[in-house]
Amino acid sequence: MGRITTRRPVVRLSAGRPDGVTRVDSLAVEEPLELRVDGHVLAVTMRTPGSDMELAAGFLLAEGVVRAADDIKAMRYCAGTDAQGRQTYNVLDIVLADGVAPPDPSVERAFVTTSACGLCGAAGIEAVRRRSAYDVAADPLHVPATLVATLPETLREAQAAFAKTGGLHAAGLFDAQGRLLCAREDVGRHNAVDKVLGWALQSGEVPGRGRLLMVSGRASFELAQKAFMAGVPLLAAVSAPSSLAAEFAAEVGMTLIGFVRGDSMNVYSAASRVCPEGSALQVASV
Amino acid sequence: MGRITTRRPVVRLSAGRPDGVTRVDSLAVEEPLELRVDGHVLAVTMRTPGSDMELAAGFLLAEGVVRAADDIKAMRYCAGTDAQGRQTYNVLDIVLADGVAPPDPSVERAFVTTSACGLCGAAGIEAVRRRSAYDVAADPLHVPATLVATLPETLREAQAAFAKTGGLHAAGLFDAQGRLLCAREDVGRHNAVDKVLGWALQSGEVPGRGRLLMVSGRASFELAQKAFMAGVPLLAAVSAPSSLAAEFAAEVGMTLIGFVRGDSMNVYSAASRVCPEGSALQVASV
Repeated sequence: MGRITTRRPVVRLSAGRPDGVTRVDSLAVEEPLELRVDGHVLAVTMRTPGSDMELAAGFLLAEGVVRAADDIKAMRYCAGTDAQGRQTYNVLDIVLADGVAPPDPSVERAFVTTSACGLCGAAGIEAVRRRSAYDVAADPLHVPATLVATLPETLREAQAAFAKTGGLHAAGLFDAQGRLLCAREDVGRHNAVDKVLGWALQSGEVPGRGRLLMVSGRASFELAQKAFMAGVPLLAAVSAPSSLAAEFAAEVGMTLIGFVRGDSMNVYSAASRVCPEGSALQVASV
Repeated sequence: MGRITTRRPVVRLSAGRPDGVTRVDSLAVEEPLELRVDGHVLAVTMRTPGSDMELAAGFLLAEGVVRAADDIKAMRYCAGTDAQGRQTYNVLDIVLADGVAPPDPSVERAFVTTSACGLCGAAGIEAVRRRSAYDVAADPLHVPATLVATLPETLREAQAAFAKTGGLHAAGLFDAQGRLLCAREDVGRHNAVDKVLGWALQSGEVPGRGRLLMVSGRASFELAQKAFMAGVPLLAAVSAPSSLAAEFAAEVGMTLIGFVRGDSMNVYSAASRVCPEGSALQVASV
């Protein structure tokens, strides 16, 4: 476990050292994790090892399979070993609680939920999205822009591995006072978010009323949907959101913020939750 | 078509303008694309519209379903329309040539190819990777480091949309003289690579002997595998590779380069293909 980074030899070429220097470099670990629910393979994700059970819980929450921590009866690593007899921790068996319906085959493959022309046109977004148990639009969260501006730095400070490898995405869940509740890293941005939201599920923090989710990169539709499924009313990203993330956030009443850099940011939806610096609420509705 | 970017209202908050300014901003478009092969749903990917048939061709190549352009008999958009009667171009029907085996169910879901403990241990990488028709290790490509250093800037110049949105990944295929053959953008890095390699397939450029693939972000295992399936012997990335990308590249004899920035870079595997600046080959073997 704890295999977040690994060390490999690398040849460093630069103008100053034209012949190249061989040294040892840290790389973010990427390994497959197979999730099995009640004996059936649900998904295999390429992830950074660590917080695997949180990842599984968050994935199941985002897929609409579970809503509460006790919807999951047990999780354990498969006892399989590699050629050297070592446990690899790359297969996780999940047992759902009695009465929790196992994922139906249409849910199993994230987006392959359609038949016929389910994806054509207006039905498109409908077909690829899940229904949340939580009313994000009704969340009364209200935070100053100056607080949102502090989140990237707080998240960066919490990132143990990033400085070493430059190869990991981060996600963090914050309260309305800007306090970090949980931060996780992964080579896959969706995995980092699953780990954080899985932590929230297991910690009684779902629904994430009054919480803020911050991600280190871009905000895709998938990440907005995961926040929605966990009942988090605000998603902020250091980089750009996609068009569908903005459309979706506007539709479900989630506040979506992008380009949180220095003391500025862009608010793409439900902007009334963000109070401009030191002034009465003046933000035009988006 | 041509829906690479879209415009949406956004509230810009910054210290200089504490009340917020509403303006219109460009966002990278993200929409689902459903790929159907011989009538069956193979995958649904969240992509930026445009070059969809290249994306499909590249995806099928990477999945090991096709090896040559004429393995695909026909591709056409589904005739479905949205509520306003508009064609949405979000479902693509693909017909394979006679004699080309349709993807078997174990191939259908990218990584879900395992049974029992197929992913445990040494079998792990084996289980999630495809077998290429091409011997990348034997490729005699040899390029100066100074040439590799020019690729990011050439790729950036080719990116029409990135400057507008900040939200798109890019991939480019280059020849051994550093000339750009094809560049594509997408909200998903794997889609950008699929589009480029699909272009290569359709242009008689597969196998990509003597070619270089450059990506704007990080290099994951998945991207290294896609280059491998297309017979491209060198993958370079602006940011970090993952551990599994480096392991895989070393194993199949592909040159993997990361952190190509300014005049420096890190070579993680098969470094003998990269000739240090203005000197005889002095690179230690990695």
